[in-house]
Amino acid sequence: MKDPTAESDAVAPGGDTAAPAACGWVEGSVCAPRGFRAAGIHCGIRRSHPDLALLASEAPASVAATFTTNRVQAAPVRYSRRAARRGRGRAVVVNSGVANACTGERGMEDARETARLAARALGVPREEVLVASTGLIGEPLPMDAVRRGVPRLVEALGPSADDASRAILTTDRFTKTAARATGLPGGPVVGGMAKGAGMIHPRMATTLGFLTTDAAVEPGLLSEILQAAVDDSFNRITVDGETSTNDAVFFLANGRAGGPPVSTDAAAGRLAEAATSVARRLARMVVEDGEGAERIARVRVTGAPGEGAARAVAERVARSLLVKTALRGGDPNWGRIMAALGSAGVELDPDRVEVRIGGVTVVRGGRGAGADPSAAREAMGADEVEIDVDLASGEGEHWIWTSDLGEEYVHENTRYTT
Amino acid sequence: MKDPTAESDAVAPGGDTAAPAACGWVEGSVCAPRGFRAAGIHCGIRRSHPDLALLASEAPASVAATFTTNRVQAAPVRYSRRAARRGRGRAVVVNSGVANACTGERGMEDARETARLAARALGVPREEVLVASTGLIGEPLPMDAVRRGVPRLVEALGPSADDASRAILTTDRFTKTAARATGLPGGPVVGGMAKGAGMIHPRMATTLGFLTTDAAVEPGLLSEILQAAVDDSFNRITVDGETSTNDAVFFLANGRAGGPPVSTDAAAGRLAEAATSVARRLARMVVEDGEGAERIARVRVTGAPGEGAARAVAERVARSLLVKTALRGGDPNWGRIMAALGSAGVELDPDRVEVRIGGVTVVRGGRGAGADPSAAREAMGADEVEIDVDLASGEGEHWIWTSDLGEEYVHENTRYTT
Repeated sequence: MKDPTAESDAVAPGGDTAAPAACGWVEGSVCAPRGFRAAGIHCGIRRSHPDLALLASEAPASVAATFTTNRVQAAPVRYSRRAARRGRGRAVVVNSGVANACTGERGMEDARETARLAARALGVPREEVLVASTGLIGEPLPMDAVRRGVPRLVEALGPSADDASRAILTTDRFTKTAARATGLPGGPVVGGMAKGAGMIHPRMATTLGFLTTDAAVEPGLLSEILQAAVDDSFNRITVDGETSTNDAVFFLANGRAGGPPVSTDAAAGRLAEAATSVARRLARMVVEDGEGAERIARVRVTGAPGEGAARAVAERVARSLLVKTALRGGDPNWGRIMAALGSAGVELDPDRVEVRIGGVTVVRGGRGAGADPSAAREAMGADEVEIDVDLASGEGEHWIWTSDLGEEYVHENTRYTT
Repeated sequence: MKDPTAESDAVAPGGDTAAPAACGWVEGSVCAPRGFRAAGIHCGIRRSHPDLALLASEAPASVAATFTTNRVQAAPVRYSRRAARRGRGRAVVVNSGVANACTGERGMEDARETARLAARALGVPREEVLVASTGLIGEPLPMDAVRRGVPRLVEALGPSADDASRAILTTDRFTKTAARATGLPGGPVVGGMAKGAGMIHPRMATTLGFLTTDAAVEPGLLSEILQAAVDDSFNRITVDGETSTNDAVFFLANGRAGGPPVSTDAAAGRLAEAATSVARRLARMVVEDGEGAERIARVRVTGAPGEGAARAVAERVARSLLVKTALRGGDPNWGRIMAALGSAGVELDPDRVEVRIGGVTVVRGGRGAGADPSAAREAMGADEVEIDVDLASGEGEHWIWTSDLGEEYVHENTRYTT
């Protein structure tokens, strides 16, 4: 298990000007890799918030995608899953405000038409356009607004992803973007943007995420890299334990950096590292922007009987309402952590458990360790709280990020209305 | 699946005076059956709230008990599980304020000493006294207060369970008691009391519950009846998805009604029916008293591929934060119900799903059914909301009660401090 905080923060020049072997964070988002353009406009799905975004590659790109594991899947998920299987694509149209979920055959037709409209305006085959939606479940897309909007959207395409990254947001408080140089020959970069603030839980390719790269990669390898990146990022965050009908993460690779195709293990490793770093930075921002969240916690479980057990315990603790409210209160209430980990459905010996909060050992041998209360309280009040659980029963390890739970979450979701 | 609302509400005279064949609700609590006494006092574990309760039978009784499935189990749970295996007992000592969980060997010694103190004051063998605790995890019991308190507690024993039912409460807003005549010869009654307002979720014999009866029942049969009653009551409620380290439900049967031992299937059935009704009424009160709760909902799933699938879907919907906040807002946001049921890990065909809220069909064939919005909103604003989900994929059925989630829950649990 890699330390999630151990990313290099070396900053290299921006995508277009990166030296071939440079590696590290760069300025920008999905347009940092060469040959990608984006746009975001208001077309009338929502009252005034930007609601339609487009991400397009100037050349056909390899495409990989991963989708929600919810059995109830929105029309855009069903449409794009099929389209992504071809492994080639050119653009993604995204709308916010309406999820186009639970909308039946009409929803599928609306997803297809949205793709068709964008394909026509872009002058590419319909099959090369993917779609994604986020917003209220059960409402049909207002297609008049989409029909009027898509041509304007294509006209607005440009080198900045600023408007696009805003148009994909729903209850988010801020945009989520990142870009990182791979260090590969030709200087390819991985860029990304994401949305998400509620309905966030692992194992569903959570949220909407968009990754791009100007490296040349075959679809099969791109898909492997995407899956690994998502497993190590979007699948390690929880805000409220909910799984959306619309979650999707896309990865487009257009080869415009001009370097040789990524084919060796070493090259694939470098690309994967950059993609994982970008995905992880985006995922972390999603947790930091958890509805009403003030702080985040990294729950790390070690010494579990296996990886699956480690994950079950980490997710249980990270999802516990009592742990999340203690986190809000900055209260090192380790009893709630013990109660949560004991109910993960994992065989464990409570008398061996050790719990540390920000390095302060609060439980040893399953009992209170007599920690200095003010030190424990300070650790629980940090911006990023580190909760480490050692089960001392094996080698399994896992970590996950979670947010605190405040009254704002309840307030917002009580009043957010159909 | 029996209709949970289909209990007979016929009221029969109080326990002691019930005609042999009368059956129905009666006044009282754990002392409604003959030969039980109770007491509740403040001994100093908590600042001023009553914190020590005793339930005692004047004759040795058959004992059955069921405990939390949390792997982290409080000392009183470990002590009483062993004691209950004997099948015979006389009394239960209960304290609130301190859970005596995660307290190691000292916690076990404190549980044993508490039982020993009560046994001595009652003049019975130590093995005949069970113990239960509820409150903060990780703190040791203040045994000086318990030592001073227990003799006073035994002196305070009387025919009313009012003080006892108050002394077992923690964040509860009201006491929870019920009693029901069995209709068996000799007129035996089942009485009960419970506590619980947070850390409530199925499959752990949730909360603290105490059932009594003056029927004569062998421990093995009593245990079967208790398990069935708990499966149909305490295992069908969720408040916050948390599982306590201390949950326990006890059932004492002392035979003092004087009727013949319960041995035929018919007699066992009548006793089970009364025990289940009492347990269900108590469990329902626990949900109604869910921390910050304003209303409850019964989530009923039908047409599932099996019972387990039905339960998984019902529990997933009942636990969903977005469903629970919609419930608070009185908003018939069926999209949240669809998203929740789709993420239960159950294979289902979303296009066959039907959802009704208070009888108003809001989803048909997996899509919005065009329900009258004001009718749906009224149904979602009822004191007890009925959410019916038909998966149309089999015969499996299950139901569960849940509470709404309000800002008060977060407020309370953010500020409840170690």
